[in-house]
Amino acid sequence: MGAAVTPETAGTSARPGELMAREIAEQPAVFDRILAQGLPQIRDVAAQIGAAEPRFVLLAARGTSDHAALYAKYLVEILLGRPTGLASPSTMTAYGARPDLRDVLFIGVSQSGGSPDLVESLSTARECGALTLAVTNAPQSNLAGAAQLHIDVLAGPEQAVAATKTYTAELLALYLLVDALAGGDGSQAAGIAAAASAVVADLEPVRAVAARLAGVERLVVTGRGYSYPTAGEAALKLMETSYVSAQAFSGADLLHGPMAMLQRDSAAIAIAPEGVAGRAIRPVLDRLLEVDADITVVGPALAGNPSVGRLALPSGVPEPLSPLIEIIPLQLLAREIAVVRGNDPDAPRGLRKVTETW
Amino acid sequence: MGAAVTPETAGTSARPGELMAREIAEQPAVFDRILAQGLPQIRDVAAQIGAAEPRFVLLAARGTSDHAALYAKYLVEILLGRPTGLASPSTMTAYGARPDLRDVLFIGVSQSGGSPDLVESLSTARECGALTLAVTNAPQSNLAGAAQLHIDVLAGPEQAVAATKTYTAELLALYLLVDALAGGDGSQAAGIAAAASAVVADLEPVRAVAARLAGVERLVVTGRGYSYPTAGEAALKLMETSYVSAQAFSGADLLHGPMAMLQRDSAAIAIAPEGVAGRAIRPVLDRLLEVDADITVVGPALAGNPSVGRLALPSGVPEPLSPLIEIIPLQLLAREIAVVRGNDPDAPRGLRKVTETW
Repeated sequence: MGAAVTPETAGTSARPGELMAREIAEQPAVFDRILAQGLPQIRDVAAQIGAAEPRFVLLAARGTSDHAALYAKYLVEILLGRPTGLASPSTMTAYGARPDLRDVLFIGVSQSGGSPDLVESLSTARECGALTLAVTNAPQSNLAGAAQLHIDVLAGPEQAVAATKTYTAELLALYLLVDALAGGDGSQAAGIAAAASAVVADLEPVRAVAARLAGVERLVVTGRGYSYPTAGEAALKLMETSYVSAQAFSGADLLHGPMAMLQRDSAAIAIAPEGVAGRAIRPVLDRLLEVDADITVVGPALAGNPSVGRLALPSGVPEPLSPLIEIIPLQLLAREIAVVRGNDPDAPRGLRKVTETW
Repeated sequence: MGAAVTPETAGTSARPGELMAREIAEQPAVFDRILAQGLPQIRDVAAQIGAAEPRFVLLAARGTSDHAALYAKYLVEILLGRPTGLASPSTMTAYGARPDLRDVLFIGVSQSGGSPDLVESLSTARECGALTLAVTNAPQSNLAGAAQLHIDVLAGPEQAVAATKTYTAELLALYLLVDALAGGDGSQAAGIAAAASAVVADLEPVRAVAARLAGVERLVVTGRGYSYPTAGEAALKLMETSYVSAQAFSGADLLHGPMAMLQRDSAAIAIAPEGVAGRAIRPVLDRLLEVDADITVVGPALAGNPSVGRLALPSGVPEPLSPLIEIIPLQLLAREIAVVRGNDPDAPRGLRKVTETW
């Protein structure tokens, strides 16, 4: 939940999907704001973490922020060479585990900073010796207050129930943090707002894919490496706005069982950025073509199969930053399918902006 | 892949689902064998791990074994108080990460021990300073050979493509390992084979639920804590044998978005063992009842809603061991739905017994 939003005002918009469309379109401006105003705070947090020399990183999050946490796991393992785990909050909150967390950096990621179980697990992690960092869009939140360190992702109030700009803001903040820890100066991210602007404006291909997929009930989204979190977040957006039964699989896991449920009328979306993740997804694409699934590829133009749909991305984005833009056409797609189906993606049925889990 | 099975002989059976039925029924005998013959080796491995005093644990696995790895993550965090992560193999195999893994116990879990990317990530972890353990059903496998330590789960050859007895054998071996590391003598597991026998024989309720769910295309499986891996494994079995679009969510994550896609004609299976995980799933059950989903509860009898279906489990099983028996009615259910639908669960379309990922 953004700071200025209450449950009463969240999800009220003039036309269905208007809030979500506006917040998707704000992402380039949010990237600019983080780079201009947020970077000094992030570099200061990185300096404090660096001085503590953590040996192991744990990330805790729920829902959309869990995909940002998974992205950070790849960054930390690849760019920092530190083993990283996604915390299972219930081990501390429900089972009362009190692990030895000396030399551990524990990062809680949450746009609202309000989920009670996240606050409790971060507080417990701090008691157990971890250095704790909260990454939120709400500096006054309980999570930010419970942690020794805080990064404000500066996305501004988010009113649509489906999180969009807070997700990519979390990604950029986490990228800049890990980049600073690895000795970088953030300059690799200089072009990210311009790349995002190009994607936000490219609505026609999204509408074409939405028209093709509007009747689909079963959809698989797949990616590898840095792009695996994109697959998870895209599936969640499609579930919560379009009510499609969308499932995310890493390309490797898809071949270990779920492949069997795909059939001629199945649809698949594959994330294929430039770099390692794009090369690694190709054998999965080949298998999807064999079962004659309806395939949409998200990625820069390449010598692809002409029978495959495409949501294009600008080329030249460094692979670790590609997740910041590759989710955007899929946010637009989830919104578009929802509107075509007559749903209001700003206020999905059965959901609240802050979810209280225990 | 079991040691005596080749790709050519796997999945050939007289009647559809006969191999899978036989292997499901073998689980009590496998439990007895592990307790009688496997325990000394497991205790020896535990002694060597204990002497190394690892501070962090990483687990690497794919497919079914990934659910066994997640179960082990809960065990290690709760019973040993060591922070634990599930490795993302691609960070080392595709991106070339060389993390600092001193003081790390790295456990590769794989029934076949044959997935090249697992062998490569375990070998890399060893080069990076980790103490490495392979948990497999194949002592001659590459994974067992690459690791310093090995535990044979003693499940015997598995011929059906859908893994059943190797999954629960992995669970019991991992339980006994963590129990030994925590100073236990394995005696809590003494009754597990008898409990499994009772579940294997209880086919009538499974047939009733299968008849009710045979036409369902969208199914959610949910559990919390120790029972969350059961939800993941049940969803995978249903996908790979029945081709149902089954999705697993922790009870907490289900309320963060996916709840929106559930509707009046949705079906849900909730794992509700005795103990913490059973209590924690009740608020999720309440929400599922609100949306009028078709609900099946897997767990011991309790004062439940009469409109809810039940796959009963014996009472009195210690909660950390409940996953070993709560998956059994769901293996039976996946097989039964597949047969009702005219599929052969012994040889699902598009799958191979050993999946080569890269």
